Amino acid sequence: MIGHGFMGAAHSQAWRVAPRFFDLPLQPEPTLLVGRDAGRTAAAAAKWGWAETATDWREAVAREDIDVIDIVTPGASHAEIAIAALQAGKHVLCEKPLANTADEARAMAEAAAVARTSSGARAMVGFTYRRLPATTHARNLVAAGAVGDVRQVRAVYLQDWLVDADAPLTWRLQQEQAGSGVLGDLAAHAVDLAQYITGLRLSEVSGTLETLVPTRPIPADSPAAATDDADGKAHGGGLGGTAGGSEERGPVTVDDVALFTGRFDTGVLGSFEASRMATGRKNALRVEISGTRGALSFDLEDLNFLDFYDYTAPADRQGFTRIMVTEPAHPYMEAWWPAGHSLGYEHGFVHQAKDFVEAVAAGTDPSPSFADGLQVQEVLDAVSRSAGKSSVWTPVA
Amino acid sequence: MIGHGFMGAAHSQAWRVAPRFFDLPLQPEPTLLVGRDAGRTAAAAAKWGWAETATDWREAVAREDIDVIDIVTPGASHAEIAIAALQAGKHVLCEKPLANTADEARAMAEAAAVARTSSGARAMVGFTYRRLPATTHARNLVAAGAVGDVRQVRAVYLQDWLVDADAPLTWRLQQEQAGSGVLGDLAAHAVDLAQYITGLRLSEVSGTLETLVPTRPIPADSPAAATDDADGKAHGGGLGGTAGGSEERGPVTVDDVALFTGRFDTGVLGSFEASRMATGRKNALRVEISGTRGALSFDLEDLNFLDFYDYTAPADRQGFTRIMVTEPAHPYMEAWWPAGHSLGYEHGFVHQAKDFVEAVAAGTDPSPSFADGLQVQEVLDAVSRSAGKSSVWTPVA
Amino acid sequence: MIGHGFMGAAHSQAWRVAPRFFDLPLQPEPTLLVGRDAGRTAAAAAKWGWAETATDWREAVAREDIDVIDIVTPGASHAEIAIAALQAGKHVLCEKPLANTADEARAMAEAAAVARTSSGARAMVGFTYRRLPATTHARNLVAAGAVGDVRQVRAVYLQDWLVDADAPLTWRLQQEQAGSGVLGDLAAHAVDLAQYITGLRLSEVSGTLETLVPTRPIPADSPAAATDDADGKAHGGGLGGTAGGSEERGPVTVDDVALFTGRFDTGVLGSFEASRMATGRKNALRVEISGTRGALSFDLEDLNFLDFYDYTAPADRQGFTRIMVTEPAHPYMEAWWPAGHSLGYEHGFVHQAKDFVEAVAAGTDPSPSFADGLQVQEVLDAVSRSAGKSSVWTPVA
Amino acid sequence: MIGHGFMGAAHSQAWRVAPRFFDLPLQPEPTLLVGRDAGRTAAAAAKWGWAETATDWREAVAREDIDVIDIVTPGASHAEIAIAALQAGKHVLCEKPLANTADEARAMAEAAAVARTSSGARAMVGFTYRRLPATTHARNLVAAGAVGDVRQVRAVYLQDWLVDADAPLTWRLQQEQAGSGVLGDLAAHAVDLAQYITGLRLSEVSGTLETLVPTRPIPADSPAAATDDADGKAHGGGLGGTAGGSEERGPVTVDDVALFTGRFDTGVLGSFEASRMATGRKNALRVEISGTRGALSFDLEDLNFLDFYDYTAPADRQGFTRIMVTEPAHPYMEAWWPAGHSLGYEHGFVHQAKDFVEAVAAGTDPSPSFADGLQVQEVLDAVSRSAGKSSVWTPVA
Repeated sequence: MIGHGFMGAAHSQAWRVAPRFFDLPLQPEPTLLVGRDAGRTAAAAAKWGWAETATDWREAVAREDIDVIDIVTPGASHAEIAIAALQAGKHVLCEKPLANTADEARAMAEAAAVARTSSGARAMVGFTYRRLPATTHARNLVAAGAVGDVRQVRAVYLQDWLVDADAPLTWRLQQEQAGSGVLGDLAAHAVDLAQYITGLRLSEVSGTLETLVPTRPIPADSPAAATDDADGKAHGGGLGGTAGGSEERGPVTVDDVALFTGRFDTGVLGSFEASRMATGRKNALRVEISGTRGALSFDLEDLNFLDFYDYTAPADRQGFTRIMVTEPAHPYMEAWWPAGHSLGYEHGFVHQAKDFVEAVAAGTDPSPSFADGLQVQEVLDAVSRSAGKSSVWTPVA
Repeated sequence: MIGHGFMGAAHSQAWRVAPRFFDLPLQPEPTLLVGRDAGRTAAAAAKWGWAETATDWREAVAREDIDVIDIVTPGASHAEIAIAALQAGKHVLCEKPLANTADEARAMAEAAAVARTSSGARAMVGFTYRRLPATTHARNLVAAGAVGDVRQVRAVYLQDWLVDADAPLTWRLQQEQAGSGVLGDLAAHAVDLAQYITGLRLSEVSGTLETLVPTRPIPADSPAAATDDADGKAHGGGLGGTAGGSEERGPVTVDDVALFTGRFDTGVLGSFEASRMATGRKNALRVEISGTRGALSFDLEDLNFLDFYDYTAPADRQGFTRIMVTEPAHPYMEAWWPAGHSLGYEHGFVHQAKDFVEAVAAGTDPSPSFADGLQVQEVLDAVSRSAGKSSVWTPVA
Repeated sequence: MIGHGFMGAAHSQAWRVAPRFFDLPLQPEPTLLVGRDAGRTAAAAAKWGWAETATDWREAVAREDIDVIDIVTPGASHAEIAIAALQAGKHVLCEKPLANTADEARAMAEAAAVARTSSGARAMVGFTYRRLPATTHARNLVAAGAVGDVRQVRAVYLQDWLVDADAPLTWRLQQEQAGSGVLGDLAAHAVDLAQYITGLRLSEVSGTLETLVPTRPIPADSPAAATDDADGKAHGGGLGGTAGGSEERGPVTVDDVALFTGRFDTGVLGSFEASRMATGRKNALRVEISGTRGALSFDLEDLNFLDFYDYTAPADRQGFTRIMVTEPAHPYMEAWWPAGHSLGYEHGFVHQAKDFVEAVAAGTDPSPSFADGLQVQEVLDAVSRSAGKSSVWTPVA
Repeated sequence: MIGHGFMGAAHSQAWRVAPRFFDLPLQPEPTLLVGRDAGRTAAAAAKWGWAETATDWREAVAREDIDVIDIVTPGASHAEIAIAALQAGKHVLCEKPLANTADEARAMAEAAAVARTSSGARAMVGFTYRRLPATTHARNLVAAGAVGDVRQVRAVYLQDWLVDADAPLTWRLQQEQAGSGVLGDLAAHAVDLAQYITGLRLSEVSGTLETLVPTRPIPADSPAAATDDADGKAHGGGLGGTAGGSEERGPVTVDDVALFTGRFDTGVLGSFEASRMATGRKNALRVEISGTRGALSFDLEDLNFLDFYDYTAPADRQGFTRIMVTEPAHPYMEAWWPAGHSLGYEHGFVHQAKDFVEAVAAGTDPSPSFADGLQVQEVLDAVSRSAGKSSVWTPVA
């Protein structure tokens, strides 16, 4: 695994837990953890159960006994690592967004296509929110026709950790590291989830990007906050925190609010918002699908529930049904606890690890593929371009 | 009162109830009800308690014993009636949207300005959702600084009575009568409410309008559905219903979905949606305000509640507080039932009647004025223009 | 109408509004308002639209032109007035609880039975919460088998207006006036509603009564608070308020918390609580029915909704469906506003007036009858007796 | 660890995860798993990561290299194992309920007291729901005076896995194995949680027990369902499932509904319900505390939230605040994910493992102790006795 910030903790937990709860065809072995700072990497490896460490990702790619490269670094380094790994015949799991630019993402998708035929290596991008029981169930319901034809989509991802104008300038707020702000970090999830659940693809967008707080304090005494090595803690990762009394401020070079309208390939309209300024909303990734026969509504803050409206039910019994998706009948739940026992955020990563291992073992393409990741990147790219042209409708790719 | 459809019922109820629960400085007398069909008008007058009827609104304007003209007809006729009434020195309460075009609205606002100085007549536009305890309380909280500086606004008005592609082609779906679709009917409320609560004004917009179902059955056997006289029933008004077996279809000439982004005069961004295609949402006028010190969230489907987030509270006690706005401490509630006893939709109209009468008696300007109504109309007009130009940002007026 | 406190306002509003929204077979005329204080009664009559006033209820009973006696006084006077009215051949609508004791209630039920055959006069007790769209719909669903056989019932009525130990000692806290505390005022509703929705009758109970705050300030300067004349305001009625600086305290002679378990005639168990000490709960009359095929859950604080669980639905789609009972398909709603437009507390009274008038006109028995009111009283009486005997199970009547 | 059913999976996961997320003073080593069936135990050990297996718990107690005995068998065997382990100087973590009878529990508590002074061994009972961020935060708020003096407590634990009258007769429905039904399994949690949050102890109760479905199909082809070895799956444990076509029925010898009223040592009243017949409620452990200055409400189905009502807030801003307890400021959360990222059911077990290890390392008493477990058992015992005496109020112990 390359990188060991917040995402590294989530992935480590997933690799360790997945084989306990699911009968996997192959057993993942946490072999080598790579980080730039030797000491910090060693500490993280001990904490998260990795056998060895290294400070150069090329070492992982070069080792014969390593089959899978899991990339959890910031987006700026994804392309280089993933392409090298694929060329070395490694299976690759790469965190989202696939890359910081559509060009990089395109090169990665091409490398994945080449690898698949040359070495059989598989590549997957980590849109983990697809893999919650509620979201997978939502997709299944749409696929089964439970909402009829999709008529409208509403998708938002609202957080509030930048409401405080003195929240520190972490790497996530710097364009060179993060590529973009809420667009790549939050809107990417909203776009992927909306497309995944509906089975539709966005073909054009009209959007606006905004940076509400233009400067923030530089976290002088904790430089790690500005790097991919973060702090080896699950709760780190450049989210929140304090600036440690620093008075020097630097420019925020990414967006903190993104608003856009999208048109899917069938002509359906969707509205999207991503914000780190939505006071009181902690992790509100919400998707609502309006269809000719029903509707679905999901909120990540209530991830054990899915609201379903059946427009074909008797008129006096219609309403949103709050399905607690913790029954054996719901996706992934057979492996977990008895009915009514909640899952949490990290379970999506466990399911991702399971699905990835199963696809690799079966020699099939994992989903979402790098091509899927590229397409999301192209949507975000189109939003940026539209935002630069007075929000004029702009085709995707 | 001119017109007697769904809105006529709501206004009649308001005129009768307001003086019972509030100590008004003047007593409204339901004198004359005007409708185009004499028989239907007489039936409505008997039902809603109006003393006399007429078939020409000019009669109402001409009568000396009538001080107030209440206009509840579709938007196409607002300008002519309101201007004549104002010129005759009558106080005017006019349903929203003020008019079907910004030009008409401008003429009405000018007539109101002239009347105010010439005859002292007052004019008010009926954005009744301002006058619920929750929305008035929201405005008061913003004005008191409870959310700090407004950073973002989200406003939607979602209904689903057009989800059925065979819902009939009522007057509300015909441009000549209704002016526009969800834009004038629903987005007008969202815009007014967002501006009212925040105290900000939209200065530019980027928007999209859409008609998802282009033709609908003509309600052959109930022509009233296509007129302003509707059916004298509270639940009518061109909303919902069935086409009565008709097979002939006519074109829907108004939008059924409107999506737009707006920028307020302070630079703050807002997102807006109005839809009659939001499956499962019956009357979801929702406004959320994100501010530097807090947030507010309102949903008309839960109109006795207002959610308030205090970002200055101790970190471990923060959350959205679900305020049940039915205490004597909340706006208008002193006049109603004991704590915890809910109000309904129609109470907004009662409060509107009260506020209008008080303003007239005091010789002060009622709010929202025709100028306010014009400004909303200009926002909607700018959305239409933006939608016609690939959603490019378009200034208001 | 005899009495003009909070309930008087609600009933007056109902008599005036019902004939506007419903096509009634008979037109109610608000003729005579009776109160003990002539001045206060005259003020209330003017406010609520009653033609004449009197200070002795016997005058109302004696008048030939009066057909209906509506009793909204505290429970202590119900029996005397109602029996006299029934003997005079008047139809009687009497507020709940039917009486302060089971003996009085029994005499009233007998008088009603006699009157029905002798003069055709009808009698009804005002359990108005039966007449909300949600509760009537709940009963209809149970009757239609939608929840199968009832297995358990949970019913609570939670308020918090006595949390403040210095809330004043109004008439509702004095046994001579009110008969009991939460038992007659709140638990009566919970019992009636649970029985109404399930169609079952409680046959034995085990209960506990408690007075958490034994003394409260006497409202020296507003003696009206301790009488049935209250203040002619809708929000009065001996609920809440302040003691006006009084330092003298008197004993609270009624219960402020009641907890009991009940067994219905089919053997089904129910749990009940009534409290005026449930901090933060303003008007939470909640009933939940668990059945072999489904469940229902209602909360008066969200009175436009009914939650329904269909245990026969596909396993992956089960959940509580939040039915917004504002569609034409729901009880009483055909007469009101378009879909999705909320009703409030007072609408239950309007529906009660309608149902009463229709029953009188049709010469059928209105429901709930005095016999129904007596049965509720007997349940409450059994709770009191059980509470006096260490909560031992005690048969009803 | 002794036993490897559903609870064994939860505890295994906890032992492995706790040291990754928390900096523990001692490192737990999953050494020996004990089960009656050698093959099934070996499979479970492999799955959950235990190094060795045995079929007799005495082997675990005898081994010198084992410091902690974790007991996750059904209640019938708790006392024998725990007492032997304590006498052997082992620290003991024992699942709830502490034992099937108060007598056994008393012997265990005494053994724990002796062991503490003789060998320093520590004993803890597994009321894991205390250790969720929401419940711990609730207790902290009460302790800090945020709700003032507790006035009332409402606690229910509602499930619905026995609604189907043909759900199989697992060990949880047999008195010899399970001791009791909902009383020991569900009410135990409600009692412990209510006492933990309030800091009060129940001193007398009045209760009713009921078995609504007296016979159920015997799961002929899966005898494991009736044993403590269950099936090594996380979702097993004698909850739910199907009877596999069996037609033979056996008697249910435990209660499936328990209703009781309790009086705490300060005189405060509490109402309690436990049910496996609450249609649509999957895992609704709910506790509501009403106090003189505020209120708290928790629901295990929404375990990342705690509702708090501040009765001292300005009157127009009061309401239940829905605190999402996923911030660093909330108990245990510093170790987990960034703000707004949900925990699930199993995290309570991780926190329990952490707290147990910390107490053992520090040589302090873990909480809840065996004495605490005994006291809960005594409450349940008093409920049983009261139920056998027509619900008469019965002192605890």
